Amino acid sequence: MADTLITVLAGGVGAARMLSGILQVTDPATVTAIVNVGDDLELHGLRISPDLDTITYTLAGEINPETGWGLRDESWQAMATVERYGGVSWFGLGDRDLGTHLYRTQRLAEGATLTEVTAEITDAWHLGLRLLPVTDDRLRTMVTLAGDGDDAGLEVSFQEYFVQRQHGVPVASVRFDGAEASAPGPEVIEALIDADTVVIAPSNPIVSIDPVLAVPGIRQALISRRADTVAISPIVAGAALKGPADRLLSELGHEATVLGVARLYAPLAATLVIDEADAALAGQVEALGIRPVVAESVMRTPEIAAALARTVLSSAGA
Amino acid sequence: MADTLITVLAGGVGAARMLSGILQVTDPATVTAIVNVGDDLELHGLRISPDLDTITYTLAGEINPETGWGLRDESWQAMATVERYGGVSWFGLGDRDLGTHLYRTQRLAEGATLTEVTAEITDAWHLGLRLLPVTDDRLRTMVTLAGDGDDAGLEVSFQEYFVQRQHGVPVASVRFDGAEASAPGPEVIEALIDADTVVIAPSNPIVSIDPVLAVPGIRQALISRRADTVAISPIVAGAALKGPADRLLSELGHEATVLGVARLYAPLAATLVIDEADAALAGQVEALGIRPVVAESVMRTPEIAAALARTVLSSAGA
Repeated sequence: MADTLITVLAGGVGAARMLSGILQVTDPATVTAIVNVGDDLELHGLRISPDLDTITYTLAGEINPETGWGLRDESWQAMATVERYGGVSWFGLGDRDLGTHLYRTQRLAEGATLTEVTAEITDAWHLGLRLLPVTDDRLRTMVTLAGDGDDAGLEVSFQEYFVQRQHGVPVASVRFDGAEASAPGPEVIEALIDADTVVIAPSNPIVSIDPVLAVPGIRQALISRRADTVAISPIVAGAALKGPADRLLSELGHEATVLGVARLYAPLAATLVIDEADAALAGQVEALGIRPVVAESVMRTPEIAAALARTVLSSAGA
Repeated sequence: MADTLITVLAGGVGAARMLSGILQVTDPATVTAIVNVGDDLELHGLRISPDLDTITYTLAGEINPETGWGLRDESWQAMATVERYGGVSWFGLGDRDLGTHLYRTQRLAEGATLTEVTAEITDAWHLGLRLLPVTDDRLRTMVTLAGDGDDAGLEVSFQEYFVQRQHGVPVASVRFDGAEASAPGPEVIEALIDADTVVIAPSNPIVSIDPVLAVPGIRQALISRRADTVAISPIVAGAALKGPADRLLSELGHEATVLGVARLYAPLAATLVIDEADAALAGQVEALGIRPVVAESVMRTPEIAAALARTVLSSAGA
């Protein structure tokens, strides 16, 4: 499949694993990832792009295996100084990792676009594939908290929900600040239209894939490619593999099962890969208008990720 | 001299040593330093204040003894990442040190003034004395290069001259961008007026003291305190102890000796401390209208710094 172009809609950890599987079975030069930037934040004056970095570090083989984010062989001297001053320390920034944010911030200040800086960073790690931020404009996932706590009704940034509160609070609603005024990055629509196969990675549908779809033009382009689009369910046996996807789906009125995922993705993807644990639901998925493909989808090892990638790519347009 | 208030005009390294001497012989609560911010820079999105930090780290006993700037026990992981990307790496920022710039930048973004942030930082290091940035406004020392090089005639920031070019190029002129529109920090004029003794530290007259004097109101306040002001010559035996003060004095038309220093400071200070190496010039200094005091002024050890501080404080108003 050397000449087959593959474009992947991507969040962070789940997408990084899916991409590492895809890169094992195809030429990296044929792969494009369109990456969520709704999780991005400005902190300490720095521009931080967690999903772009998680993918970059994972594919470089440098992700911190203990945390699942940041770089391996990390030290924390800068944060220790920040803590001495009583500064903002809930968002952990390792010393090695900080270099990425310093570079990105400096280049943006010099007038480079996020697309350009991302290409420079991925080149430096010799990744081979193309990572495209979904937009060079400001897009921020905002979360309104629910529940009985003091902050019920408060709208916070995604990272204030996800990291500062460790996604341990119920959510009333999610919106994508800046989405309406944003434009897709310069190569994004072309990457969707030109792809032979489009993949929706097993990322959080609400806070990783939805902000990508909120950028004007993306959803329409994706709908036009529905026949060649394969989604992988991030929900397995009614639970998220990582993070709050299951709770968010429930809290926002969706079913936290592959059926809820099937309803969300049926307009966008002809095929939905569901885990063997959900094989019994295949018929119900099919009835929702999206073709189920059952596979081992929990990417515990590189071999499983590669096998899943083969399944995904051979399912497209089938 | 517990009730004697002392205010010191300060640059970086020389001022830090002078202050460490003064703090050995007097109550830190009586000491205020008014610190140059013309060397400040924005890099990687961070606000960096080298003179404030050199003084803070020195007085905290945490200065890097090998470099004379930055923190001891430093690591360089962030810069290694920046270098991987081919980013700006001529201005070395250690990991521990970075935390100071992260904190300062975040607090400024939150609306704090540089004066407020500086107080928070010095409190965290338990310094005892009061460090006042000369202004909370933007003030930048700009250097126009001379000589035969490709960049002759180019105007660069102080750090591009001092660090990037290692002050190895001749200088045509120096100006203080933003000075005219700047105002002294909220406690600065009061600290000059209320002081029993004003000290002009042995800092570079051209690029450390002059930018302080360029802030409207400072020079007049200092002139009004001339009788109680003691300057320490940063030039010993015709050479700067550190940095390019001697060359800058020559290049800008001054004499690079204690006599050149005496001419610059005679309008501002009644007393000039000169080193024993320059004792033979005491008569010529006196003839320039500033009273010479001869002392051992090269602060090689804490004991010498303390002795010099005693001499300085006992010379004031004498």
